[in-house]
Amino acid sequence: MNYAAVLHNSTRDFVYSDGTSDQMTFKIRTAKDDCIMINLYFTDKSGHRIKNEQLYNRPMEKAASDELFDYYETTAQLNSSVTKYYFEFISFNKDLTYYSLYKFYDEAPTDFSRMFDVPLYARKEDALKPVPWMQDGIMYQIFPDRFYNSPDSACDTHISEFMEKAEWDSKPKYNSIYGGNIRGIYDKLDYLKELGVTIIYLTPIFRSFSNHKYDTVDYMQLDPSFGTEDEFRQLVEGVHERDMHLILDGVFNHCGFFFAPFQDFIANGKDSAYYDWFIVNDPEKPIYKGSGIESIRENFPPNYYAFSYIPAMPKLNTRNRQVREYIFGVIDHWMQDFGVDGWRMDVADEVSHEFWTEFKIRVRANRPDAPVIGEIWYDSRDWLLGNEFDSVMNYQFSIAVNKWIGTHSISVTDFVNTYGFIRGSLNRYAFSMLLNLIDSHDVKRFLTVCDGNKDRLRLAVILQMSIAGTPMIYYGDEAGMEGGEDPDCRRGMYWREEQVDKELLDFYKTIIALRKSEPALRSLKLKVVTADNENDVLIFNKYPEKGSSGKAVRVIINNSPETAKLDDLKEARDLITGEIYDKELPPYKGIIYYF
Amino acid sequence: MNYAAVLHNSTRDFVYSDGTSDQMTFKIRTAKDDCIMINLYFTDKSGHRIKNEQLYNRPMEKAASDELFDYYETTAQLNSSVTKYYFEFISFNKDLTYYSLYKFYDEAPTDFSRMFDVPLYARKEDALKPVPWMQDGIMYQIFPDRFYNSPDSACDTHISEFMEKAEWDSKPKYNSIYGGNIRGIYDKLDYLKELGVTIIYLTPIFRSFSNHKYDTVDYMQLDPSFGTEDEFRQLVEGVHERDMHLILDGVFNHCGFFFAPFQDFIANGKDSAYYDWFIVNDPEKPIYKGSGIESIRENFPPNYYAFSYIPAMPKLNTRNRQVREYIFGVIDHWMQDFGVDGWRMDVADEVSHEFWTEFKIRVRANRPDAPVIGEIWYDSRDWLLGNEFDSVMNYQFSIAVNKWIGTHSISVTDFVNTYGFIRGSLNRYAFSMLLNLIDSHDVKRFLTVCDGNKDRLRLAVILQMSIAGTPMIYYGDEAGMEGGEDPDCRRGMYWREEQVDKELLDFYKTIIALRKSEPALRSLKLKVVTADNENDVLIFNKYPEKGSSGKAVRVIINNSPETAKLDDLKEARDLITGEIYDKELPPYKGIIYYF
Repeated sequence: MNYAAVLHNSTRDFVYSDGTSDQMTFKIRTAKDDCIMINLYFTDKSGHRIKNEQLYNRPMEKAASDELFDYYETTAQLNSSVTKYYFEFISFNKDLTYYSLYKFYDEAPTDFSRMFDVPLYARKEDALKPVPWMQDGIMYQIFPDRFYNSPDSACDTHISEFMEKAEWDSKPKYNSIYGGNIRGIYDKLDYLKELGVTIIYLTPIFRSFSNHKYDTVDYMQLDPSFGTEDEFRQLVEGVHERDMHLILDGVFNHCGFFFAPFQDFIANGKDSAYYDWFIVNDPEKPIYKGSGIESIRENFPPNYYAFSYIPAMPKLNTRNRQVREYIFGVIDHWMQDFGVDGWRMDVADEVSHEFWTEFKIRVRANRPDAPVIGEIWYDSRDWLLGNEFDSVMNYQFSIAVNKWIGTHSISVTDFVNTYGFIRGSLNRYAFSMLLNLIDSHDVKRFLTVCDGNKDRLRLAVILQMSIAGTPMIYYGDEAGMEGGEDPDCRRGMYWREEQVDKELLDFYKTIIALRKSEPALRSLKLKVVTADNENDVLIFNKYPEKGSSGKAVRVIINNSPETAKLDDLKEARDLITGEIYDKELPPYKGIIYYF
Repeated sequence: MNYAAVLHNSTRDFVYSDGTSDQMTFKIRTAKDDCIMINLYFTDKSGHRIKNEQLYNRPMEKAASDELFDYYETTAQLNSSVTKYYFEFISFNKDLTYYSLYKFYDEAPTDFSRMFDVPLYARKEDALKPVPWMQDGIMYQIFPDRFYNSPDSACDTHISEFMEKAEWDSKPKYNSIYGGNIRGIYDKLDYLKELGVTIIYLTPIFRSFSNHKYDTVDYMQLDPSFGTEDEFRQLVEGVHERDMHLILDGVFNHCGFFFAPFQDFIANGKDSAYYDWFIVNDPEKPIYKGSGIESIRENFPPNYYAFSYIPAMPKLNTRNRQVREYIFGVIDHWMQDFGVDGWRMDVADEVSHEFWTEFKIRVRANRPDAPVIGEIWYDSRDWLLGNEFDSVMNYQFSIAVNKWIGTHSISVTDFVNTYGFIRGSLNRYAFSMLLNLIDSHDVKRFLTVCDGNKDRLRLAVILQMSIAGTPMIYYGDEAGMEGGEDPDCRRGMYWREEQVDKELLDFYKTIIALRKSEPALRSLKLKVVTADNENDVLIFNKYPEKGSSGKAVRVIINNSPETAKLDDLKEARDLITGEIYDKELPPYKGIIYYF
């Protein structure tokens, strides 16, 4: 056995509760294919005081694998204040090895002082509690300026001097304003409902002069170009009436140049009441040279902390209690006064863990199941331990899908290993709510990545819809929209009949409905059957969670321009199209069938 | 190379700041003796926007080793908002391997998307900031009832019906009251100052009917048997006048049976204003049967959460906002009104991380360098990431010293591996403030563990005083006190001339003074030269930190009843005794000399 590959700490990432019961998940990592079986043994530390000491055991399940490792998990119902535990490994030659408090033994430890321990109450309190409507949800991301310009909107059509009015079908420029608005989203709620969407995520809607509004001017005001407060209230009500949820984008890492406290800060420097709302680099030098946004070049790099050194995006000092209370006030306002259901946090990894810990408490005080979702592009485990985020935007998945199916620049094995790494490294409940996207407002559209080949887009969507998590559809992907890097990926939504690919839209509706009707698709139980690098074919099975009623399904993805020969494929009826496949699968074809 | 043994996450435990500068520490773990060199490469993610992209590198240093692993560290001054980085391994056959974003490469990655990243600002804010007076301190733990009964004390000598007055030299029983008091500690401040103590830690002093006072009745009141508020104020002033610091024991996991809110809770149940201050197991059953503490047997196991199922130690519901504000009020009271400098948290691992995160903010609001120290017996890394504790009671060290020197039940290699595991697994700044104890009020005294052999006690103290951290002396160890398991380890302090081992006391004074004068002893730079299991000899070097002026020293511990033959030992002058040793070291002898 490769002892040095074994990884288990008695910390939150390896032992955790589901937050509502005493059901605990234990995780351990070993070198790949190093064990044939792992058992967890546990006992009540104080058990001898209330009954005879009892040693329980649970077989562990291989939950995921990647290039180097297997990840085993098991859950156990605990009832003691402190539980002591250790692991038993059975290797291929049937040798037994015990792992207990960071040491390996040939015999099972018998005294408590040599065992790992888990204080139950503390773990339950700190746990990441799954939000059922996220686990079962279908999310739709809307960039409001580009979604729909309702003729009934009461929005202010005045455009700031920095921006330029654009035609709906034109190619976006960095300063284009298209005129989409809140009433436009309301008008299209039935379209979204029919598509199968259950959660709508809006990129920023607070007052700002840009089209993306990631540079907020007033966090308490809906941007007038998007409409009125009454229209926003109508939207939230319309969403809730349709049993859907609404999530907003919270941009609290930085504000915009015209945010009043920032203007005061650059005008009055140390005399400003807002001096500590921002962070000066060199207090001996002027904070800002010249005046107004036009002097921004003179101020590069800025003499204050700023997102990516952009002078117009000053970083907020979230250490400052006043800044915190201001932000919490913003949260309370939009949740209490309008009924917003949750938040997606922009540039989440550049704000402190300590801030997010307090932030989550404040959000949850408004709505006990409000999800807080971080924008973290890479390894997100540090934020998903329970007290900070419930989910993140799963760019790791997105990048892997783009590389495997979009550009063929990684192999199917690489893709499978990325999936295994994410599944193995994250909290299982966080994994069950990850926003699985294939593209977004920040990257090239997937259809453009694969040169407009809609068969390949379908393959990506089949993957997206058949793994655990919350599939997130970027507006218009379902209609066949294309678009390169930002700002081109933010074109005006296709609504006209000649624009919309009706066949693709129907495919989305069908597969979303299938995801909802088949618990196996939403489940965490995934077993890779074949990852065939030569023929670029992936086959995996999905099984319903224990206690769930659905059937097991098999998913086959043929990511190759050749027909795949599949001896094991026997008269399988594709649950998406109803067609029957036998022995072979056409180029770039993906199917799902009962297995 | 054993790829599966490599461990580095881009998380707080592997990349962190010192909290005050942009100096970041990077840590990576490899299989033992797997590399001859590791280099860190890093670059500014946005660097190309302000200057030419530059790739910097730092050689990494092997900071520690244990049975299976080497732990490498390096520090680097960063100046960018986001830094991208990767590692280069040079193996014994001179092959180069690169580790970047959880993948291994034969060539160095060149694009940012394949590198690890560290957002600097966030890491700095979350960092564990070292407290210099802890790093350079000598702590002394006092159990107030047993330290000194001052004739000048204004304490209330009335004893509760549950307790029994004991003679100072008698053998402690669980309910003995000896009469030590706050004024007694004040009277002995010069004794402690002369010993070299710089930090005094008092076990609980708040009102309670027990002698240990871990079952608080009133958190806002000094126990009358310990004295008056004026006497406590006088003590704090006396401590501060002598450039010392005072730390109190905070018992917030649970309260005592007679805590007024708990009495109200059991009397009034769901009608109590304090119903949510505690946690009921089964709301359908009575909370408490019978009345008063005498019916405690009827209530076992209790129908409410309790520490170790002890009905008289009900767990506080620290999720409840009222409970939190009450606790924070307690903290504010003792810090603001009396000048207490820091806190040791009892049963720290059974309270949530989220609570401790808020707790630290509240403590730090009173005193920016107040340490928060957890009672965590085993793996404490999860609490030492920055936002919770600054240090823990280092029982891992204590247990290893007790087993190696006290009972010879582990080998010198086992001891060295335990040291390496602690050093390798923890934040370096936390490690530099760990409370390194050899015994405490909760375990057998070390001198009793080694059957009264003071030579062996000296060996343990030499170890305690020559590694980084804050040595913690349990009252009376320096005088030669013995005592078995609790309550015997809590005897009345030796003060009379015929009781005190003057030679041992002088040894303590000398080695404490030596620790203060030799920066190498306090440093983290430790290199094991020999761990000789056959002869039970440990040799290690200590080097001053970079930029510090002291000399390197060598420490030799002969933990054997035989004379150790040491060819490399040449006319070495022991810095403790001034004696010179050549070629051999007597049984159970430890020395420190300039090397």
